[in-house]
Amino acid sequence: MKLAFRLKKKDLQVVLLDRNNYHTFQPLLYQVATAGLEPDSIAGPIRKQLEPDPNFFFRMATVEQIDSERKKVYTEIGELSYDYLVIAAGSKTNYYGNSSILKNAFSLKKIPDALDFRHHILQNFEMAVNHRSRKQISPYLNIFIAGGGPTGVEMAGALGELKKSVLPKDYPEMDFSGMKIILVEGQQRLLGAMRPRSSQRALRYLQKFDVEVKLNTLVDAFDGERVKLSNGDQIESRSLLWASGVEGNLIEGLPAEAIEANRIRTDRFNRVKGTESIFAIGDLALMKTEHYPNGHPMVAPVAIQQARLVANNLTALRKNKKMKAFRYFDKGTMATIGRNKAVVDLPGKISMGGLPAWVIWMFVHLVSIYGLRNKIVVLINWVYNYFTYDKGTRLIIRRFKPAFLSRKEQSKEVA
Amino acid sequence: MKLAFRLKKKDLQVVLLDRNNYHTFQPLLYQVATAGLEPDSIAGPIRKQLEPDPNFFFRMATVEQIDSERKKVYTEIGELSYDYLVIAAGSKTNYYGNSSILKNAFSLKKIPDALDFRHHILQNFEMAVNHRSRKQISPYLNIFIAGGGPTGVEMAGALGELKKSVLPKDYPEMDFSGMKIILVEGQQRLLGAMRPRSSQRALRYLQKFDVEVKLNTLVDAFDGERVKLSNGDQIESRSLLWASGVEGNLIEGLPAEAIEANRIRTDRFNRVKGTESIFAIGDLALMKTEHYPNGHPMVAPVAIQQARLVANNLTALRKNKKMKAFRYFDKGTMATIGRNKAVVDLPGKISMGGLPAWVIWMFVHLVSIYGLRNKIVVLINWVYNYFTYDKGTRLIIRRFKPAFLSRKEQSKEVA
Repeated sequence: MKLAFRLKKKDLQVVLLDRNNYHTFQPLLYQVATAGLEPDSIAGPIRKQLEPDPNFFFRMATVEQIDSERKKVYTEIGELSYDYLVIAAGSKTNYYGNSSILKNAFSLKKIPDALDFRHHILQNFEMAVNHRSRKQISPYLNIFIAGGGPTGVEMAGALGELKKSVLPKDYPEMDFSGMKIILVEGQQRLLGAMRPRSSQRALRYLQKFDVEVKLNTLVDAFDGERVKLSNGDQIESRSLLWASGVEGNLIEGLPAEAIEANRIRTDRFNRVKGTESIFAIGDLALMKTEHYPNGHPMVAPVAIQQARLVANNLTALRKNKKMKAFRYFDKGTMATIGRNKAVVDLPGKISMGGLPAWVIWMFVHLVSIYGLRNKIVVLINWVYNYFTYDKGTRLIIRRFKPAFLSRKEQSKEVA
Repeated sequence: MKLAFRLKKKDLQVVLLDRNNYHTFQPLLYQVATAGLEPDSIAGPIRKQLEPDPNFFFRMATVEQIDSERKKVYTEIGELSYDYLVIAAGSKTNYYGNSSILKNAFSLKKIPDALDFRHHILQNFEMAVNHRSRKQISPYLNIFIAGGGPTGVEMAGALGELKKSVLPKDYPEMDFSGMKIILVEGQQRLLGAMRPRSSQRALRYLQKFDVEVKLNTLVDAFDGERVKLSNGDQIESRSLLWASGVEGNLIEGLPAEAIEANRIRTDRFNRVKGTESIFAIGDLALMKTEHYPNGHPMVAPVAIQQARLVANNLTALRKNKKMKAFRYFDKGTMATIGRNKAVVDLPGKISMGGLPAWVIWMFVHLVSIYGLRNKIVVLINWVYNYFTYDKGTRLIIRRFKPAFLSRKEQSKEVA
């Protein structure tokens, strides 16, 4: 989106292809998944964002193949020639080949993922009230999150808030003291990309929200009923959110030398290895530099900065000027845990926690979300949730109500 | 919902069964279907609305059968005994046995219906831009609405606004002058339940919004590609919204004498014919009176007033007092057509149109919608839509993107 914006009114014909007609603000997906926000408030229609420009064209289509020799892309609505191609397809969940997890766990990369998870946990609560014994109830209530990065930490915190403030009001007849929210992280600390001090803070905050954190632990298997951990523990749960890894959304047809570690190798100008006129930016792009020998972190600021750079470089190329090399300016990292609790790492070794970090987190996210309507609706929801200790959108909106589910497949709208 | 509210703190154990965990504010479904509102803003979680009352229980379940002899209801989560049973299951779309329409048309009774229609028309616009000739494009653009009651009139007006204000901005390369929005009504005037003056006004307003209105006409068939009308016309269109009729959501197990015209016959106290302790209220209830020999209109005010009455009568029964008979107080009828245009019939032969009616319509709907959060979000959207001439939620959010659809089934998330 940033690249398309920057290429406006540049005397170029720009064609944007996307499989969706909207852009997702991914950092707030976890709030949709935990009934704090409506899905429509974190999505912006692409056509709306780019109108009006007579040289700009949007087509809702999936790119199936690229032919870098003939300079063509192939989609299900036909083929298209290009002078320059920029691939910004982002990343998808990486299950590392674990088929039981792939089959039964939930992920959190797209709006339908967030809605599936929301519907699944609410449905489980509705089923839990039909049982009496704690043994019968606990699989419905227990929720596992695999991966202690920002997604995992934010989800765990939001679920902790739900357990503490919302569920006891909604289900006065139920005892939620046995409900376990378990965050599993393979490394020895949470938020590995942040400073150790922030990791410790996040851990402390999560424990306040009654989240059980298991460090140095991996999820080995999940059959939809029971989670098996690397330490041998087996805990009953019907809900596992997999936030342990991502991999590039690769597209077929690029030179073999360009593919490495499920990402696309690029030079310092984001140009794909072995091609002249294809660029890759964002999570997909693997650009090895002195500072980032394994590529840049797969986060939004890198993508946005690369988009700006490539927009300028494309204009430079047209004018036969030299391209500029990419230099990542790391503005910092942050994660929110819950009410009044967040962690922020800023450049210059400044780390913050608590209320100040939480306010910064909210401000940054609010200005980043697309569109006035969305900003206002998100803000209203936050204010409402804050003062009422409530989450407004705990709705199970789907065509069919599967009565007794045991698997993710049955819980999803489409098998 | 009204009945459950009224039975709070009455020293009764109340069990509410619903197949959904939310209550839908049906009058605004058409705005969800036309991308003006997000679905979550017209739905309220049932548990939230009724907390906290230790004598109130909600179970998300579908009632499959009633046994009026043994005083039991059977659901997929088990059976339940009752002393008194109130059936308030509302109505569903009536296709009058027309299988081609049942199979291919869209309806507008539930939130998933509204989302299906929204996704379908937006998807059609996205497909239209891939074609060149007007002949190829028009089936994607043309939209039929069958039924000139409030739902049909409001849908047609909202689509007219979309065509006029939003689509030309979103698709600058497309010519929307050939797009037909056709409202088909079998009777000789729109809004048959309102005064003739309001019908004429509605017709005039719709024509201003570029809606083609065909009176004294029926939709005979729809194969998903072409609509056949009773006047012999055949017009290409992939979108037919069926708003021509409703029928009661009947439940098995009631005495045969209680079922008439797909509704449940009741006495003046809303007690189901042939039973002692079962009541039916709302759209489902067919109560014949002098003023309403064919039963009351199937509208929300009747349902709400009957709920109040039955709540009082149930309390009276417990105290061995006499029950009161139902008397419908008709506060008036209204329908909105679009920006600054609505029609209102009030008691005392007062009819209004234009801006005053529109303001009344908005006010009445805003106070009727459940919950502070929803009221604010709806208001924000209305203000935004009004001043920007925009509709904020034109998003196709679903798991799969069916590329080339020709039928409703393929367009729905679940076949």
